[in-house]
Amino acid sequence: MKGKFIQRLFHIVPVLLIAGVLNAQPPAGPLAISPQVNPDKTVTFRYFAPSAREVRLSAQFEKGPVAMTKAANGMWSVTLGPVKPDIYPYNFIVDGIQVMDPGNVAYFPNERFKASLVDIPGDKPLIHSLQDVPHGTMVYTSYKSKVMNGIDRPLVVYTPPGYETSPGQKYPVLYLISGTTDTEETWFKVGRVNFILDNLIAQGKAVPMIIVMPYGNNFIEISGPASPDAIPMYSKYSDEMVNDIIPFTDRNFRTVADREHRAVAGFSRGGGQSLWTGLSNTDKFAYICSFSAYLTKEAFEQNFSSFYSKPEETNKRMKLFWLSVGNEDFLYRQAADFMELLKSKNINTRTLITTGGHTWMNCRLFLSEAAPLLFR
Amino acid sequence: MKGKFIQRLFHIVPVLLIAGVLNAQPPAGPLAISPQVNPDKTVTFRYFAPSAREVRLSAQFEKGPVAMTKAANGMWSVTLGPVKPDIYPYNFIVDGIQVMDPGNVAYFPNERFKASLVDIPGDKPLIHSLQDVPHGTMVYTSYKSKVMNGIDRPLVVYTPPGYETSPGQKYPVLYLISGTTDTEETWFKVGRVNFILDNLIAQGKAVPMIIVMPYGNNFIEISGPASPDAIPMYSKYSDEMVNDIIPFTDRNFRTVADREHRAVAGFSRGGGQSLWTGLSNTDKFAYICSFSAYLTKEAFEQNFSSFYSKPEETNKRMKLFWLSVGNEDFLYRQAADFMELLKSKNINTRTLITTGGHTWMNCRLFLSEAAPLLFR
Repeated sequence: MKGKFIQRLFHIVPVLLIAGVLNAQPPAGPLAISPQVNPDKTVTFRYFAPSAREVRLSAQFEKGPVAMTKAANGMWSVTLGPVKPDIYPYNFIVDGIQVMDPGNVAYFPNERFKASLVDIPGDKPLIHSLQDVPHGTMVYTSYKSKVMNGIDRPLVVYTPPGYETSPGQKYPVLYLISGTTDTEETWFKVGRVNFILDNLIAQGKAVPMIIVMPYGNNFIEISGPASPDAIPMYSKYSDEMVNDIIPFTDRNFRTVADREHRAVAGFSRGGGQSLWTGLSNTDKFAYICSFSAYLTKEAFEQNFSSFYSKPEETNKRMKLFWLSVGNEDFLYRQAADFMELLKSKNINTRTLITTGGHTWMNCRLFLSEAAPLLFR
Repeated sequence: MKGKFIQRLFHIVPVLLIAGVLNAQPPAGPLAISPQVNPDKTVTFRYFAPSAREVRLSAQFEKGPVAMTKAANGMWSVTLGPVKPDIYPYNFIVDGIQVMDPGNVAYFPNERFKASLVDIPGDKPLIHSLQDVPHGTMVYTSYKSKVMNGIDRPLVVYTPPGYETSPGQKYPVLYLISGTTDTEETWFKVGRVNFILDNLIAQGKAVPMIIVMPYGNNFIEISGPASPDAIPMYSKYSDEMVNDIIPFTDRNFRTVADREHRAVAGFSRGGGQSLWTGLSNTDKFAYICSFSAYLTKEAFEQNFSSFYSKPEETNKRMKLFWLSVGNEDFLYRQAADFMELLKSKNINTRTLITTGGHTWMNCRLFLSEAAPLLFR
């Protein structure tokens, strides 16, 4: 349903009506059709700013900002590509100021920056695309967190196709955490969890599962992922998962509430939180997945020696220990070292190293590859 | 859960981590705490732009844009108010360019403009505020629209507290449509439907109900609400409601599927769509609510004479015909005339004229006042 934003733009809007809705109304003048994905997979971006001195496009399929050119009517535009089919964050830089694409409803939920999303379809539908298969639903809810002093904390939950119509059935649960400055919505709006799972399930590649997406920020300052001073944050998050998030989920959704039917995964900060939470609670999780994250050798050895002291027992108990990272990720070296560290401890892992960086293009790929291995 | 955005900002983010997430990273320099709602209900807005020549704030509690002042470190700020407790759209105008507040996750879903939201709490909690009562859930789903040539169309659905835990129970349904350029998310993110209903239900003022929020745009160009050439758009939307949205809802949610347990309401364009859909289908809707909308005398008399030809029968059949508008709404005159028109036809209505304009502050008020009258 989020793939329809381009079509929405062709609806011409009476500015009169908008004027009443917000004091700051859209600029008068031509409606910018943007982004416009062309049949040859080039993309045309447009931004109307008659008085701007410079407008650039920052898109994650480019190495850096690209200059746009201004037409006589004040419409800036640039056509790029052909672009490899995927979903990419982008925004405009107008006289040095970052702005979202005003007419694009596909957005990147984040605490620090505002970006829009452009979806380049594949010749064959991609795993994250809306396809004609049974669809699950996304549920927005919240729980009271004892660990966070009683505040309400948001949760977005995917329930698989058929969940509503088969009240007798119970499902395994993947707890899926997003990255630093992301919100509980990012795995949905950018990660396309719902379409990826709908498609994997329809193809028989993944078992129907519930996916719980919490808000990863617990307001403990860190200087970097898995650095020693990240441990208090990880460990408080692990407490919240075990004492608040899992019990709430088991009370309110039809879950199979045991370790064999419970997985934890996450990206970036969420990957570190997943590693810490999973390793600290092997009685609750038989599946651990880390996307673009790691623990330092010191943090791992000082806190989880029992995990590797008897590797055969651990390898028998853990159904999956997944680690993946892109070879251009700014955390690549540390993530690869952590893969090596586990190997040196004789811990069985499934590892995937892709091209690309610390991006949601890789996040979707990692989820698409890891989800089929869960709950088998 | 959306009320927590201010607290989120106090988490200092390692820019290193963000850098990997988006080429366009947040500006280096101090983190802008914005909006900051002060104890005296003044609000401080901040925007970091060392090289900007002029930064103004456009907030819907002000008549127009307000100048912000720049500190030596490049942080622009302004403190306004005290502001009447409510939720207001706002954005920054940076050298003439509209921008959302980069660090505020509370956003206004819209097809044409991008705005952030600031929530001024009341001394006593307001009806739209998150309170310690049982919470319903918001469900994101989609349906295939025959009327719209088979495309998938988004739906956001509120299910009341207890829906999951009382599988035997069936509920009445309010179909609630947002305005021109709004999306299916606007009643949720800006209208706070979920908290308003949670609170009304907890206070015993509203009956537990399902609320279905469709996407109001069916891509038929109009020049204004209820103008003669809006009729094809209204009538196609009515077809989609009757042939696609209602059947999908009755198949997938536990509804009481009869006219006595079905209401249609909407704001602005959605109000016109609600009037047209309700009046065209009195066999399906016993409740019609119009927020800041109207039909012209001609459109009403030419299409719905049977509705008022026998007013006593109509007044017996219709459980509620609600009409509300703000006295500063740019549609006030037309909406008030439509109220008078119905009166002159001896049709019973419930009318409410508030202060204020064509705003979501009024939308929330209208829903809060109308919802208690539904399904009684």
